[in-house]
Amino acid sequence: MDSIDPSKAYRLLEAGPIVLVTTSHEGRSNVMTMGFHMVVSHDPPRIGCVIGPWDHSYKALRATGECVIAVPTVDLAGKVVDIGNCSGDEVDKFARFKLSPRPAQKVSAPLIAECLANIECRVADDALVARYGLFILEAVAISYDRDRKERRTLHHNGDGTFCADGRLIDLRERMTLWKQFQVDL
Amino acid sequence: MDSIDPSKAYRLLEAGPIVLVTTSHEGRSNVMTMGFHMVVSHDPPRIGCVIGPWDHSYKALRATGECVIAVPTVDLAGKVVDIGNCSGDEVDKFARFKLSPRPAQKVSAPLIAECLANIECRVADDALVARYGLFILEAVAISYDRDRKERRTLHHNGDGTFCADGRLIDLRERMTLWKQFQVDL
Repeated sequence: MDSIDPSKAYRLLEAGPIVLVTTSHEGRSNVMTMGFHMVVSHDPPRIGCVIGPWDHSYKALRATGECVIAVPTVDLAGKVVDIGNCSGDEVDKFARFKLSPRPAQKVSAPLIAECLANIECRVADDALVARYGLFILEAVAISYDRDRKERRTLHHNGDGTFCADGRLIDLRERMTLWKQFQVDL
Repeated sequence: MDSIDPSKAYRLLEAGPIVLVTTSHEGRSNVMTMGFHMVVSHDPPRIGCVIGPWDHSYKALRATGECVIAVPTVDLAGKVVDIGNCSGDEVDKFARFKLSPRPAQKVSAPLIAECLANIECRVADDALVARYGLFILEAVAISYDRDRKERRTLHHNGDGTFCADGRLIDLRERMTLWKQFQVDL
């Protein structure tokens, strides 16, 4: 996997893919599925997401202030759903779902080798965690698998159905106000 | 357009479509394009989004506490980009882009007749507005156009390219923990 600048997190997340989130705490790693997230700012690269006490990963995220947002592609659709429908409280999900953990560059949580991209994050603001489980994260490193052929991500319709990425519509020449964000991945 | 329950907002937004946001203030309506948004909770139906002082709509949203999140489809791609690349400070965007405003049920901001769905929202929490322009909204009504044939939404890759909704992957039978959210639109 190549290392790319953390400022490019918006290029991976703004389109709203379903993602996996890893944490590591007290010698155990966990992974959850997450659909409630957004880009908050380009610079610094901040991300908002909802992980609450109802999620087993919450305790580790609170304790360490670190996680990895991994971006899966359509070939992983079944695992993405199954990971979201069991709890790290009962299951070693890396083992059960045959995911390969890899050391991250800057955080304790592991990367997932099978994913297209892995965004290493640190908690930047917890002001709305008590009310909504809403964390403000900052991306601190990104690994991206340029050798991967399957790059179509999945968009969760909220009910267990997903849209795969379809046709690409290129309107870059009409982005007159926002040209500075047209960076390559 | 049919009225559907505001609790179904997550079914329209979790997949991460690019959206339009309307406001109305001092006799003038405006519309902006927004890509930084997420679902925050199912019940009540809360939505997080970023609209800052750099957006012309910010002042109206602050003053009225109301907006409409309209969900456009692929046939509107060009307009979605052009709306995001000019300012309501200089342009009457409803007129320029030939959008048809319709009265909302519960808020002062207008619906957009050309969109697939219109989610009427009120500001529920502004604790992170000063820091990030991050509003917590609550959906209070939804209008949905069941007669529309084109229902593919657009996902912004952050650089002026968009993925249209592609193949539908149905994994509802594996949503064992989350069956209660499998409601029809």
